[in-house]
Amino acid sequence: MSSALQNDCFLRACLRQSTPHTPVWLMRQAGRYLPEYKATRVKAGNSFMGLATNPQFATDVTLQPLERFPLDAAILFSDILTVPDAMGLGLSFGAGEGPRFAHPVRDEAAVAALQAPDLDKLRYVFDAVRSIRQALLTTDAQGRRVGRVPLIGFSGSPWTLASYMVEGAGSDDYRLIKTMLYSRPDLMHRILDVNAQAVTAYLNAQIDAGAQAVMIFDSWGGVLADGAFQRFSLDYTRRVVAGLKREAEGARVPVIVFTKGGGAWLDDIAGCGADVVGLDWTVNLGAARQRVGHQVALQGNLDPSVLFAPPEAVAREGVAVLESFGRPQRADGGWDGHVFNLGHGISQHTPPEHVAALVEAVHAHSRRQRAPA
Amino acid sequence: MSSALQNDCFLRACLRQSTPHTPVWLMRQAGRYLPEYKATRVKAGNSFMGLATNPQFATDVTLQPLERFPLDAAILFSDILTVPDAMGLGLSFGAGEGPRFAHPVRDEAAVAALQAPDLDKLRYVFDAVRSIRQALLTTDAQGRRVGRVPLIGFSGSPWTLASYMVEGAGSDDYRLIKTMLYSRPDLMHRILDVNAQAVTAYLNAQIDAGAQAVMIFDSWGGVLADGAFQRFSLDYTRRVVAGLKREAEGARVPVIVFTKGGGAWLDDIAGCGADVVGLDWTVNLGAARQRVGHQVALQGNLDPSVLFAPPEAVAREGVAVLESFGRPQRADGGWDGHVFNLGHGISQHTPPEHVAALVEAVHAHSRRQRAPA
Repeated sequence: MSSALQNDCFLRACLRQSTPHTPVWLMRQAGRYLPEYKATRVKAGNSFMGLATNPQFATDVTLQPLERFPLDAAILFSDILTVPDAMGLGLSFGAGEGPRFAHPVRDEAAVAALQAPDLDKLRYVFDAVRSIRQALLTTDAQGRRVGRVPLIGFSGSPWTLASYMVEGAGSDDYRLIKTMLYSRPDLMHRILDVNAQAVTAYLNAQIDAGAQAVMIFDSWGGVLADGAFQRFSLDYTRRVVAGLKREAEGARVPVIVFTKGGGAWLDDIAGCGADVVGLDWTVNLGAARQRVGHQVALQGNLDPSVLFAPPEAVAREGVAVLESFGRPQRADGGWDGHVFNLGHGISQHTPPEHVAALVEAVHAHSRRQRAPA
Repeated sequence: MSSALQNDCFLRACLRQSTPHTPVWLMRQAGRYLPEYKATRVKAGNSFMGLATNPQFATDVTLQPLERFPLDAAILFSDILTVPDAMGLGLSFGAGEGPRFAHPVRDEAAVAALQAPDLDKLRYVFDAVRSIRQALLTTDAQGRRVGRVPLIGFSGSPWTLASYMVEGAGSDDYRLIKTMLYSRPDLMHRILDVNAQAVTAYLNAQIDAGAQAVMIFDSWGGVLADGAFQRFSLDYTRRVVAGLKREAEGARVPVIVFTKGGGAWLDDIAGCGADVVGLDWTVNLGAARQRVGHQVALQGNLDPSVLFAPPEAVAREGVAVLESFGRPQRADGGWDGHVFNLGHGISQHTPPEHVAALVEAVHAHSRRQRAPA
């Protein structure tokens, strides 16, 4: 497979290299706000996991947003809970409910029995990665076979997976896992240790299959107290990052770490070994760049709710995010990296034409920002 | 009524004056984790508003936690939604559900019709304040009638009230209010303007009735984007603070502002005119003190989930919060202020004996911290 890309802006921004515009992709860009997604989901028995476990369906929905919008990256269609499912916890999605595990990990015996999964049980994910890479191939102006944009693989962080594994479902107060954390930190650390091994192997297998960047979603790191976050979430994310293959097909594989609600710990997160730190919308992007922009690229951080507003307002707020980061060229001639994204997954209630307005505005304004003054 | 207090540690810490120990109270300290609260609630027709609107019941439940634990402050038992209810929005609490408004404020006509409420409709709140002050009276060692501890009054912030008023209920994504904010900022500002007037008058009436400190709960400020928070939440909180009576019964009335999830904006919030800034558990208390401890006292910030762990772990984590703040005496002989609290309301699943262990540990350790080295 050719590793050449028609559009490598995303990878270059992750590595803090020059780009003609600020690359943009959206968390959960393949999703329910697109009617074509819903149509494919019906074909898959109206089941989320029916989509995720079928490489052809996963490929189809991964490419759908790229047909509509000139996005600068594709992201594997999958779920963060595939790993605990492969550990035997029995994942299901009830109608109108979130995910649920039949066998949550709550006592000493369950913790002792926990093991990193046989990667063969996750083969459908790696098959999807290969299939998507094929589907992304196109012929460029010189007649070469190239990828349209890079493909991002992903996993939940060890802590975020653990919170689902212990709670057995989503939670408002994380009562069960926090009780374990403060009462039996030994059990908590054992779960996180297994998860870190599992996530490392899972992401490396995605890279082997063709993922050109990987993102670790620490979706629930932000519910932890200062101090507990560093010990129970970030330390294990750091361990995963340290174990990842950082080069494939002759190119650097950037690693993105995103802790929702993690703004308070920006300096700590920027030191975890990742190339890119994802930010939610509460963070001032310009201030974050001043603090850690010499060390990592930044990804984010438009409030997804902005997309409910009319296209003119969407464009204006997108431009405000670019202006907050500022011109990516530094005074010393080097470049800081910014990947435009939302600060959280796109809502199912988003009108697709508002997404078009956003992508257009980000591309157009970021080109203007780069023009000589 | 005598304004003398048996225990004025809380007020002194708010004003960054010396105290023999770090005062402690807990958000939602009168609540469902106490069996005696549930018993009183049954007497009130098993209704939250039945408790809140009856000054005798409100007095009884306000004092219940003080009978069990040597807390350093009492807080009025009430709800942040009393103000929009008095505006005629029709508050109800469905069984097993959160609050709901029959007449949410969603269009131009509803916004135009909105007015700050007649305070007479909130007389039950001011009656409760007076009744609680009476119930807090005791006879000290010199035979004087004094208050046991100070009474804190409170209100929701203009933004937090608006989020309920527009959404009509709790929300996961704040879709309706954020759509209004980004599409029709003029309507949003008009609601916030009315709310700021209403909250100012409401808190001043609580102070007139006997509240010795007041707290503004900006519970949902943290869902806003950087920039939007300052314009749509903090600016209106600042306006309320500027309009408050700061002296009553010959004493300073401290103002506490608490923005859940507001750690990123600590410097902005510390400049809003409040005496005390409340912090959730994601914030490093020592770092916050270094940044703004010369300007305001800090309140917080134990993760309420710590209280699910055994008493020894609760005590250890409480001590860790005190150690994070550090010895309140500064090297220059002055004092910085710390009011110990949780970073959010106490959970209904908390064992009361764990609260006893926490209060004991905070008092004992903070006395040791003050001892000459």
